[in-house]
Amino acid sequence: MSVDAEEMRARVALSRLAEPANPALARTLRLVSPAELLDQLLSQSLDDHVLDRQLRSRLERLDIDKELAALDSVGGRVVCPGDDEWPVCLDDLDDRAPLVLYVRGGGHLAAAVDRAVAMVGTRDATAYGVEVATTMSVELSDRGWTIVSGGAYGIDAASHRGALAAGGVTVAVLACGVDVTYPRGHDGLFEAIAESGLIVSELPPGSAPHRMRFLDRNRLIAALAAGTVVVEAAARSGARRTALDALALGRSLMIVPGSVIASSSVGCHRLLREKPEAVLVTGAADVCEQVGRIGADLAPVPQGATTSRDALTAELARVLDAVPVYREQGPARIAATAGLPLRDVELALGRLEMVGLVEQRAGHWRLSAAQRRARSSADSPRSASDGHTRVSPGA
Amino acid sequence: MSVDAEEMRARVALSRLAEPANPALARTLRLVSPAELLDQLLSQSLDDHVLDRQLRSRLERLDIDKELAALDSVGGRVVCPGDDEWPVCLDDLDDRAPLVLYVRGGGHLAAAVDRAVAMVGTRDATAYGVEVATTMSVELSDRGWTIVSGGAYGIDAASHRGALAAGGVTVAVLACGVDVTYPRGHDGLFEAIAESGLIVSELPPGSAPHRMRFLDRNRLIAALAAGTVVVEAAARSGARRTALDALALGRSLMIVPGSVIASSSVGCHRLLREKPEAVLVTGAADVCEQVGRIGADLAPVPQGATTSRDALTAELARVLDAVPVYREQGPARIAATAGLPLRDVELALGRLEMVGLVEQRAGHWRLSAAQRRARSSADSPRSASDGHTRVSPGA
Repeated sequence: MSVDAEEMRARVALSRLAEPANPALARTLRLVSPAELLDQLLSQSLDDHVLDRQLRSRLERLDIDKELAALDSVGGRVVCPGDDEWPVCLDDLDDRAPLVLYVRGGGHLAAAVDRAVAMVGTRDATAYGVEVATTMSVELSDRGWTIVSGGAYGIDAASHRGALAAGGVTVAVLACGVDVTYPRGHDGLFEAIAESGLIVSELPPGSAPHRMRFLDRNRLIAALAAGTVVVEAAARSGARRTALDALALGRSLMIVPGSVIASSSVGCHRLLREKPEAVLVTGAADVCEQVGRIGADLAPVPQGATTSRDALTAELARVLDAVPVYREQGPARIAATAGLPLRDVELALGRLEMVGLVEQRAGHWRLSAAQRRARSSADSPRSASDGHTRVSPGA
Repeated sequence: MSVDAEEMRARVALSRLAEPANPALARTLRLVSPAELLDQLLSQSLDDHVLDRQLRSRLERLDIDKELAALDSVGGRVVCPGDDEWPVCLDDLDDRAPLVLYVRGGGHLAAAVDRAVAMVGTRDATAYGVEVATTMSVELSDRGWTIVSGGAYGIDAASHRGALAAGGVTVAVLACGVDVTYPRGHDGLFEAIAESGLIVSELPPGSAPHRMRFLDRNRLIAALAAGTVVVEAAARSGARRTALDALALGRSLMIVPGSVIASSSVGCHRLLREKPEAVLVTGAADVCEQVGRIGADLAPVPQGATTSRDALTAELARVLDAVPVYREQGPARIAATAGLPLRDVELALGRLEMVGLVEQRAGHWRLSAAQRRARSSADSPRSASDGHTRVSPGA
């Protein structure tokens, strides 16, 4: 399912005309469609004069085709509320939900953030912070969690890199256009993220990062994840805003402590002292205990939930059905069972692993522990004779 | 006031016959006096056969005069419930209160623990832990807090040494006799503590440290202080027992966090995760906020209570008396009032500021808020005519 082209174009236009998190605009869009609002603006018939003045200043230079061409040139796409890829968790932002998302990368955004943890912290990270962020990100990725962060230097970069190193999925939410590399030094990192994960922004292509945009961006990081982990934060830090956004959204706020002598953890300790809801975490296991789902994550080998399966393409579902429950098989055998080309099956297995549905040992595959549990508790058809289960697409 | 010699001797005897924290013994002593109980034991007329058996095993070798002579040889004294020096806070231990305390040192025990913080942690401390314990102890001592600890290597030693370095009062509660140096390497430390502070034990002279005695001793550390700070603790640590004792007694439990990579703070983080009542502290100011008394410790400029004033040199006291209460004055005016050279007054003002007795705005000085409050609640002579207060040395 995807929204129609007219609505998509209108949302792109409005994202250019308005700055993010404009509650007046959001409230108006409950009464009229984006296309109608744009029409009213163009025909000077918008009743709300304050909103009219806000949106009009950039109206002269509006060129939707140019926006879309710029996006297209970096292989980006537009994701609107109502699209399959739209993360419904953003609805929790209410009046401050984004109008539209610009997305780059090979992942499926809604699927990617179905089990996501945000990891944020200072750009001026210490060796300790980088070590903790990297290790935690690797371990959460191993457990099938997507890592959401802001693409900045320091803790953000370590969080993204840990996920990449573990072959996991990571989402960078930028405070500029998805075609803008900020900071410049993260050119290679952003390319790597886009390959298997996602680069996301609510700002149209070419948008430069401003201070307010960073602060507004942080609400998206908090909203896209089940919980936010702050690894290192000085007394004044953007991570604090993300932390407070997470609490305001009813998400978990998790804090990594550190040296009380170093300035790099002052913000972390302050949050732990000020916010009774904030939970001290020392590693991935503590994070899973906090944001994990009962049955999926509170088990020795934490792992992917059944909801992920519903988001699969027909081909992925077919490959999944061919994967044995317990006794691992090689890709060739699975390809034969599925009746699909080996290369396609290999790619599909990689993707299924990323969303936590299958696991491998030495190149041989079987269902993940959580998926096995999910199946054994579900009322699904099974044939135990050959040691694995076939599940019909709707199971 | 002090208890009579007969009761004192009976308590000394019972402390030799029984191990610490014997609830059956405590309950019996609510019905009969220590001397009566000892009589019943000697005349084989004690009704409680379990208690009789517990106490009888060491009865043969009992020699009260020898106990008292051994104590006397190290300059120690016996402090009993009801004595002036007995800390009434120990009553909170109820059935597990000590029978008697053996005390060495120049301090007055009850006065010393009137404002006391316990600081405990691992013997196997890191440089970080030693640094934090020392600094916190210095700063709490500067604010007039007594530091209670267990005389062990590591965090305990750093806590005692910080207090000694600051010229403060520190109390070492031992798990052996006050005449036993355990650990051996702390010979010099114990001597220094005894000079200005106190060495305390509920065990009679000559008692060796055993594992159970360490655990029982920890309840005394927790009970003698308004709150306990755990600086570093590994997964298994005696400090955990002190921490739990503090909570059980309704005292504040304060935890210093550290690296989540190092094993040395695992116990600290575990307490913070498991105990909602545990409060993260990053320094002396946080500790004061937790255990301080309103009016004395919750002031904007943290400070030494009136006790600090008593420690001032004659010259500092003279400068302090010349500082206005409310309306700030420059150093020259204060020097004129004090009748001292400007340069000396400037140095003195800096020192008085450091101990929290005065404050400045743009180079002009007045008494600190806490000091103003302390004076207004004290019954001190004052002359408001010239905008500042003169305090006689005894005020």
